[in-house]
Amino acid sequence: MEMSINNDIKARVPALLERVKEKKPLVHHITNYVTVNDCANAVLAIGGSPIMADDIGEMHDIVSMASALVLNIGTLNERTIESMIIAGKRANELGIPVVFDPVGAGATRMRDKTANRIIDEVKLAVIRGNISEIKAVSGIASRTKGVDAAEEDMLSSGNLDYGKKIAMDLSRRLDCVVAITGPVDIVAEKDKVCFVENGDKMLSTITGSGCVCTSIIAVYCGVTGNYFDAAVAGLISIGIAGEMAREMTAVSNAGSGTYREKLIDSLYLLTAEDIQKRGKVSCHET
Amino acid sequence: MEMSINNDIKARVPALLERVKEKKPLVHHITNYVTVNDCANAVLAIGGSPIMADDIGEMHDIVSMASALVLNIGTLNERTIESMIIAGKRANELGIPVVFDPVGAGATRMRDKTANRIIDEVKLAVIRGNISEIKAVSGIASRTKGVDAAEEDMLSSGNLDYGKKIAMDLSRRLDCVVAITGPVDIVAEKDKVCFVENGDKMLSTITGSGCVCTSIIAVYCGVTGNYFDAAVAGLISIGIAGEMAREMTAVSNAGSGTYREKLIDSLYLLTAEDIQKRGKVSCHET
Amino acid sequence: MEMSINNDIKARVPALLERVKEKKPLVHHITNYVTVNDCANAVLAIGGSPIMADDIGEMHDIVSMASALVLNIGTLNERTIESMIIAGKRANELGIPVVFDPVGAGATRMRDKTANRIIDEVKLAVIRGNISEIKAVSGIASRTKGVDAAEEDMLSSGNLDYGKKIAMDLSRRLDCVVAITGPVDIVAEKDKVCFVENGDKMLSTITGSGCVCTSIIAVYCGVTGNYFDAAVAGLISIGIAGEMAREMTAVSNAGSGTYREKLIDSLYLLTAEDIQKRGKVSCHET
Repeated sequence: MEMSINNDIKARVPALLERVKEKKPLVHHITNYVTVNDCANAVLAIGGSPIMADDIGEMHDIVSMASALVLNIGTLNERTIESMIIAGKRANELGIPVVFDPVGAGATRMRDKTANRIIDEVKLAVIRGNISEIKAVSGIASRTKGVDAAEEDMLSSGNLDYGKKIAMDLSRRLDCVVAITGPVDIVAEKDKVCFVENGDKMLSTITGSGCVCTSIIAVYCGVTGNYFDAAVAGLISIGIAGEMAREMTAVSNAGSGTYREKLIDSLYLLTAEDIQKRGKVSCHET
Repeated sequence: MEMSINNDIKARVPALLERVKEKKPLVHHITNYVTVNDCANAVLAIGGSPIMADDIGEMHDIVSMASALVLNIGTLNERTIESMIIAGKRANELGIPVVFDPVGAGATRMRDKTANRIIDEVKLAVIRGNISEIKAVSGIASRTKGVDAAEEDMLSSGNLDYGKKIAMDLSRRLDCVVAITGPVDIVAEKDKVCFVENGDKMLSTITGSGCVCTSIIAVYCGVTGNYFDAAVAGLISIGIAGEMAREMTAVSNAGSGTYREKLIDSLYLLTAEDIQKRGKVSCHET
Repeated sequence: MEMSINNDIKARVPALLERVKEKKPLVHHITNYVTVNDCANAVLAIGGSPIMADDIGEMHDIVSMASALVLNIGTLNERTIESMIIAGKRANELGIPVVFDPVGAGATRMRDKTANRIIDEVKLAVIRGNISEIKAVSGIASRTKGVDAAEEDMLSSGNLDYGKKIAMDLSRRLDCVVAITGPVDIVAEKDKVCFVENGDKMLSTITGSGCVCTSIIAVYCGVTGNYFDAAVAGLISIGIAGEMAREMTAVSNAGSGTYREKLIDSLYLLTAEDIQKRGKVSCHET
């Protein structure tokens, strides 16, 4: 069935970008203070509307306005963890999709404990992380070093089956879409899997490319009830933007500072046609 | 009396920018973690000196050094709200101007409650917000969506009288300068009103242009006791910088990432002569 | 003995940069929310790996993974001060170097109290600040205005002996390396002193150049037990990057926004050869 899904996705994703520009979904973020500005500008660039708020006292009101909710534990603390739980439960009550980024899961017991609490108490639409983070959330031991994927975990065309199995298993267990990002991205929902091969290695030279990816997935979740499509659309969008940014910086002797700016430019300039033409996605039903 | 005030302002504003570069006013910010870096760089770019601090334990010492204080509730929380009240009262004792940005007022009860507490307990020099925020602070129902002005509220040459009345009424009630930013900006102080038509629509594609505008107004409040002039100077400055940034990015296929950088460049390059030549302000006494 | 040390340093520093690119040291930051994103991107640009975390509940786990720890009190608060103490003590137990940036020391009693508590309870590898901050930490009265060095304190070739004495005295007292940054940078360890003359005045037009300097010193501390070399390497690196950024922006009519981006580009592009060729350091044993 590969081709059919493949073609469906190829047909549906570009239309999703147009719906984003039309609907301007409001995405509520409870996220870290390191990359929060990048996430806000990325959401605006692609056509969404970001709102960052983390005080427990306004979680109900903010979530109620939102089209999607991002929970990112990059700089978690006792106060905001409670806000995440309250906001997540409220989003569940209202049927608002929750996208979870378990930043640094596997690195500390506090992050593992928090990630487990979130997946236990909140029904997720999508969970996105690098392979080490997703392994940690899955309860598989890993050697995460900080917030980057451990070397030996790195997904490449060589060990996709390994990542694919982890993603599918976690998807079945949590009944949500699982996205593992790396040299090749994997999106799984139960027995359905897509690989996305867009992207550029410069993305790993700036902070926040993972957080931004999660925010963009949330933007798409804000315009469709099909969260599998939303995750694929998010990965293709950030991947192509990463390629466009590389092309824009290729000429000058640019570095990661310029690349970061061009990534936002690329998200801003990204069109449905770019996705149609440049999207590299292959899907399977097993 | 239009021309007279108009001419006065035109003559005074350029001189204010030169006073900023000469005095380098220290502006204390208690602000949100989303756009705080943009505010700091914008204040430095135009010639001021920013200091961001929010622990209640050092509010007295920080405020005492400052030439102006910014209270921005973009990511308010229980801890920093108390710091804002303490800092605001201390600034009042010392005669230091307080500039308030009611980010997201109207969006949550917590923000409305906090905004009301601030205007009740702190004497403001200037309050700046979009039309939906100012309506909320005025106690007029609005349909704010997140932190952006509601569509139906948007000020344009079409409904300026409506915004003008709201600004003047709030100014009389709070005995402070009220600035409403939008396609056309309004500055009101009791019966005195100016419209500023500088600006560029790209400003709405980046996060923080509103916060930066508030910070720039505070920089000007740090060099003159005439807060009406300071507000007009801030709006003209950010508006012209927005136009210059657009011109700088017009050539390349730039997006919002490049625009954001050029906005800071423009604030850095802005001269008294630019303000003299490009400022679009018309004033009225009613 | 000037030449000998001088030559040693000149030979060792370029090799340190290569070790950074090879080892990618993980640098744990407990830092301010104003410049945290710049610090993260700067650490990535030069080849390190940043992790920002401040909740007391994960300090032990995070510190244990790190190659160096940065304590930056730019936006200190009661909660994070405790995290800094816990993290610093843990780093001491594990022999992980601690680099302290006493941002705004001298500006408020809370900052002085906190700086004193940190130097009393934590053994530092390096302390870096501007002359006003280092004077405050040394208990010498100063007239700091906010987070910038007081005018009358400014180090220049004219009063280097004055700064040199302050640095050497504090180094002896704290038994750590002391780095004072300014027009001319001073690094002292007991009787050993180096002056670094790389840099550009545009560095003072952006927020965070000091914080970034501290983070880069920490990156180098993560690859050598010689913290004096690490401090010199950090100052030379940021100084040369500042010069390169100036050269990159010289052509266009750029301002501080572009300069900030090019500074990150320059850290990314910086090579051992650049350090060898452009490093301006002179050392003395007294």
